[in-house]
Amino acid sequence: MNKFIRVCMTTKQVKVEEAPQKYAGLGGRALTSTVVADEVKPTCHPLGKYNKLVFAPGLLSGTNAANSGRISVGAKSPLTGGIKESNSGGTFSQKMARMGYKGLIVEGLPAEDKFWVIKVNVDGVTIEDAPAEIIGKGNYEAIKILSEKYGNKAAIAIAGPAGEMKLAAANVSFKDPDGNIRSAGRGGLGAVMGSKKVKAVVLDDTGAPGVNIANSEAFKEAAKIFANGLRKHPVTGEGLARFGTNVLVNILNEAGGLPTENFRYGRNEWANNIGGETMTETMEARGGKPTHGCHPGCVIRCSQQYVDKSGQYITSGFEYETIWALGANGKINDLDALAYCDRAMDDVGVDSIETSVTIALAMDAGVIPWGDGKAALDLIGQIGKGTPLGRIIGSGAGITGKVFGMTRVPVVKNQAIPAYDPRSVKGVGLTYATTPMGADHTAGYAVATNIMKVGGFVEPLQKEGNVELSRNLQIATAAVDSTGMCLFIAFAILDIPEAFNALIDMINAMYGLSLTADDVNELGKTILKTERGFNAKAGFTNAHDRLPEFFEEECPPHNTTWDFTDEEIDEVFNF
Amino acid sequence: MNKFIRVCMTTKQVKVEEAPQKYAGLGGRALTSTVVADEVKPTCHPLGKYNKLVFAPGLLSGTNAANSGRISVGAKSPLTGGIKESNSGGTFSQKMARMGYKGLIVEGLPAEDKFWVIKVNVDGVTIEDAPAEIIGKGNYEAIKILSEKYGNKAAIAIAGPAGEMKLAAANVSFKDPDGNIRSAGRGGLGAVMGSKKVKAVVLDDTGAPGVNIANSEAFKEAAKIFANGLRKHPVTGEGLARFGTNVLVNILNEAGGLPTENFRYGRNEWANNIGGETMTETMEARGGKPTHGCHPGCVIRCSQQYVDKSGQYITSGFEYETIWALGANGKINDLDALAYCDRAMDDVGVDSIETSVTIALAMDAGVIPWGDGKAALDLIGQIGKGTPLGRIIGSGAGITGKVFGMTRVPVVKNQAIPAYDPRSVKGVGLTYATTPMGADHTAGYAVATNIMKVGGFVEPLQKEGNVELSRNLQIATAAVDSTGMCLFIAFAILDIPEAFNALIDMINAMYGLSLTADDVNELGKTILKTERGFNAKAGFTNAHDRLPEFFEEECPPHNTTWDFTDEEIDEVFNF
Repeated sequence: MNKFIRVCMTTKQVKVEEAPQKYAGLGGRALTSTVVADEVKPTCHPLGKYNKLVFAPGLLSGTNAANSGRISVGAKSPLTGGIKESNSGGTFSQKMARMGYKGLIVEGLPAEDKFWVIKVNVDGVTIEDAPAEIIGKGNYEAIKILSEKYGNKAAIAIAGPAGEMKLAAANVSFKDPDGNIRSAGRGGLGAVMGSKKVKAVVLDDTGAPGVNIANSEAFKEAAKIFANGLRKHPVTGEGLARFGTNVLVNILNEAGGLPTENFRYGRNEWANNIGGETMTETMEARGGKPTHGCHPGCVIRCSQQYVDKSGQYITSGFEYETIWALGANGKINDLDALAYCDRAMDDVGVDSIETSVTIALAMDAGVIPWGDGKAALDLIGQIGKGTPLGRIIGSGAGITGKVFGMTRVPVVKNQAIPAYDPRSVKGVGLTYATTPMGADHTAGYAVATNIMKVGGFVEPLQKEGNVELSRNLQIATAAVDSTGMCLFIAFAILDIPEAFNALIDMINAMYGLSLTADDVNELGKTILKTERGFNAKAGFTNAHDRLPEFFEEECPPHNTTWDFTDEEIDEVFNF
Repeated sequence: MNKFIRVCMTTKQVKVEEAPQKYAGLGGRALTSTVVADEVKPTCHPLGKYNKLVFAPGLLSGTNAANSGRISVGAKSPLTGGIKESNSGGTFSQKMARMGYKGLIVEGLPAEDKFWVIKVNVDGVTIEDAPAEIIGKGNYEAIKILSEKYGNKAAIAIAGPAGEMKLAAANVSFKDPDGNIRSAGRGGLGAVMGSKKVKAVVLDDTGAPGVNIANSEAFKEAAKIFANGLRKHPVTGEGLARFGTNVLVNILNEAGGLPTENFRYGRNEWANNIGGETMTETMEARGGKPTHGCHPGCVIRCSQQYVDKSGQYITSGFEYETIWALGANGKINDLDALAYCDRAMDDVGVDSIETSVTIALAMDAGVIPWGDGKAALDLIGQIGKGTPLGRIIGSGAGITGKVFGMTRVPVVKNQAIPAYDPRSVKGVGLTYATTPMGADHTAGYAVATNIMKVGGFVEPLQKEGNVELSRNLQIATAAVDSTGMCLFIAFAILDIPEAFNALIDMINAMYGLSLTADDVNELGKTILKTERGFNAKAGFTNAHDRLPEFFEEECPPHNTTWDFTDEEIDEVFNF
C-alpha cells in the first residue's frame, strides 16, 4: 500500500506514482492533513483550482483487524475555510488499501460543465463521463445505477445533488456493505468534489493483491486481543451494539447536556420517545435490524436498518447526532419523522449534523414551526431542488444565521456544534472551541470521560481537568483517525491497556516497525500541529477558538455557563 | 462640542456626559474607531449586546467650512466582522455638532420585540416608541412621516427595512437637505442599528448654541482659502460639479479599469450610454437638477436629482459606483433602469455598492439574466419583502457567492469590491486588500493618482510606487475622515498646498491648537493602527489582506494580472 493516484481534473490526466518517502507511516487523517498542508495554498478558494481532495485509507485498512475500514477524506473546507478531515465507513477504504493505494489526490478544475466518474480497478485509473441519469439524482438511486454499471461489489464514493451545487453542508457519501449510505459528513467535502466535477469514484478491487503484512503471525495474535477488547468493554461490546449511538439520548438527557430548542435547555421531557431504547424496541417490533456494521470487519455494529410500520427499509446510519439535532434541538418528537429526514439528508448528500442543526435554527428564526417534521422534510427537499431557501439551509448554520439576522447561532469556525451542551459537558466544549476542524465532538470526545466515565472521570460541570482531558483526547484521536479505525475503539483502548497495546502491535506487525505508545502520541501531536499550522496560514488565530457568545447564558437544569477564560482555552493547544 | 450621549437599549437609560479627556482632538472616524476599539469586545457578535453603534460629527462639522458636514458611523461590522466606519452627507452632522454633541453611543439590546426612535433636542435625549406606520416601510415614506411628526427641519438617521431585518448589506440612511436620502452605506451598520431596535435617530437643533470657534477671524480666513481651493481645482471645481461622480464611467472605461460582467473585462462598448456626460444631458433635457449638494455648505455639489421623462423625481445621490456595478458589471445598459434600482436600494436601506455588486454576481450565477433591469429591481424589492432570495442578496456578495457555490466572488474581508479593477488600477487594489474596512476605494483612493494624475502620477498598470501611494493615501484619508470633510476635498488638497494648509489652519483656529502637517499624518497613522489592532483581536491576519484568487486571470484590454506578492502587499501597513 504505497502508491498515490493523482487525478488532474483540469487536464484529465492520471498519474500513479510511488508515494514520497516522507509519507511513510502516515495513513488516514495523518496522510490527508499532511498532503493538504504540503500541497494546498492555505488562502486558496476552497472551490477553486488550487484546492485538492484527498482520499486515504487508514494504516490498518485492508487487513482483517476489527473496525479498520474507515476512509479519510481531506481538503480545505468550504464550510470552515480551514483544513478538514472527515472519515466514513463503507467498503471504500479496505478495497482501496487492498489495491495498494495509499492516497487518491484529485486536483484542478475542469473547464467543461459536466460530471465525471473516476474508475479505479486492477487495469488502472480512468476518467469517464458520469452516466447522465445520475446527475441531480438522489444518492440511493445513483448508487443503484452505478452498482449496476460497475458491478455490485464496487466501492463507491459519491457527491450528491448538494455536492453538485457546491453547497457547504454537502458530504461525500460512501456505499456501505448493503448498498446503503455512509458519509464523510462534516465540512462540505462534497462541495469540493462537486467543484471538481467528480460525481463519483468507483473502485473495484477484483484481482487486487491485498495488503502486505510484514509479520502475519504477530499481527493475527494482536488482532485477536484487540477484537476481544472491543467485545469485552461495556460500551463497544454492549451499549453501542444493542442501542446504537442513539443510546446517548437518554444518557445525555439524564446528564442535563442534551441541547434542546436551539441550545436553550439541556434536558427535555420527550427524550425517551426518540432514544435508543425506544428505537431498538421499534425496530424489533417491526422487523428492522437493530444492529449492523457500517463496514466489513466491524465488531461493534452500532449501525442499524430502521424500517417503517410495514417493515420497509427507511434508513441506516440513523445516528444520535441527527436524532438529537432534529428531535431534541428541533423538537420533532417522532422517530419515524426523524428517520425520513435522515434518509432525505443522505439522499441529497448533506451532513446530517450541519443540516439538522440548521433546520432547528430555521425553526428558531420562524421559517418553519418548532417540531414540524413534515416542514423539516420539505426543507431538505428544497436543498435538493436548489431553491433559494434550500441553498441557504444547505450552506449550513453559520450562513443561515447570518441570512436571518440571528445571534443564537451554534457554530465554531462556522461549523455547527454537535449534540452535547458545552456548558454541561465542558470537556467537549473545549474540543469544539479548539480543534482545527471547527465544532466537532469526534475530534476529542470528552463526553466519554465527562459522562460515561471511560478513561477515568472528569467532572463535566466544572472547569478543573477539562483542558488536559480535551488536549489528550485530541492528540489520541488524531492518531486513531490515522489508523483507519473507527473512533469508537477509543472506549475500549482507554480502559483496557492490552487492547491499546494490541493496536500498536498490529501497526508494528504490519509495517515491521517498533513504535511505542509515545511514538503514537507524538504522531497525534504532529498531526494537530500540521493542521493548526495550515489554519494559521489560512488566517485563523486564537480568536477563532471561541464558542458563540450566547453560551454565557445559564443552561438548565444545571444552570451552568461557559466560563473558561480565553487564556484557559488557549492552554488546550499548549503542547 | 464636547458631550457624549450614551443610550442603553437594554435599560432604555440615557446619559449625557462630558467626553473623556482622551478623546479631545478626535472627531468623525478617529472618534468612532477609537470608541469602538476601546469599548467593543473584538470577538463579540456584531448583532449582539456587546456591539455599540457610534455616531460622530467631524472636527469641523457645525462650522461654515465648505464640505464639513459628513457624519461618521462606527461599530463592529456584521458584514466584515472587523471594525467599520462609514460616513455620509445629510444634515445630521452639522446639527449634532451645533448641539454640542461629539458622539452618540448606542449600546445594549432591548428584550422587547419593537422599535424605538431616539429623539435629541435642546431639552435632552429621549427614547420613544417608533411610529407603527413606519415599520417595514420604505425610507422615503418613513422619512416623510418622521419629518411630519418631528418637524421638517429635524435631521434624521434611519434604518430601513433591510436594517430591521439585520441584513449585512443594510445601511444607515440620512435625510438630505431636500428630504431625500444619503447613506452611510458600507459594512452593514444599518443591521447593527436594527439589532438594537433603533428605527431612527431624530435630531432637532432648534435653539442650539452652535459650535465654539476659538479664533474666529483666523478661521474665517482659512475657510475662504480652503473653499477657493475647492473651486479652483479642475476635479472639485468642474468635473464633479458638472457630471457628478458618474464622470468616472468614461474615464475608467478609457483607462481599461471599468469592471464589466462581474470583473471579466476592464472596458465595454456601452459605457457612454450610462456615463456622466449622458446623464447630465438627460437631466438637463428633462428638467432634473444635474448639480446638488448632499449637505449644506458643500461647494463641490457632485450630487443631483435624476428625473424621469416627465420630469418626476426618481433619485439623488445617483453615484458612479452604483451605475458602474449594475450598468457595467451587471450590463444594464439603461440609465432610467439604473435610477429606479438606485432609488429602490435607498428605499429598502441597503448599501448600493454591496447590493449592486451582489446583483451582478446573481446574474453570473444565473439567478437573473445579465443586463435585466426589471429583474434587478425585483431582486431589490425581494430584499424589502424578506423573501429567502431577498435575504441572500441583502446579505451581500460574500454570502451570495457561497450560497450559489461560486468562486468568482469580488470581496475582500467579505465586503464587495468597488468600481475600479485592481489589475488595471493597482494602487487602489492595494487599498482594497489592506484597509481594515474591507474592500473600500474611499479608504485610500489611489485612482486619483493612478488615473486622474492628482497628487502626482503613479503608473496604474505597474507595481512600482503603488505600495507607497496606497499607504500614504490611507493615512491621509483616515485623517480627512476625522474632520467631517467630504473625501473629495482630497483632490484639491493633494494638488494645492495652500488648501491643505488652510484645512489644518481651520482645525487650529477652531480648537486653539497648533497642529502641523506631521501631526495630521500621525493622527492618520494612529487611527489606522487602532483599527488594525481591533481587527487583529477580532481574528484578522495578513491572510485576510488578499484579493480573491480570480484576479490572477488577465483583465482585458491591458491583460494585466494582480501580481503583487504577499510580502509586497504586507508592506502597505509597514509604518
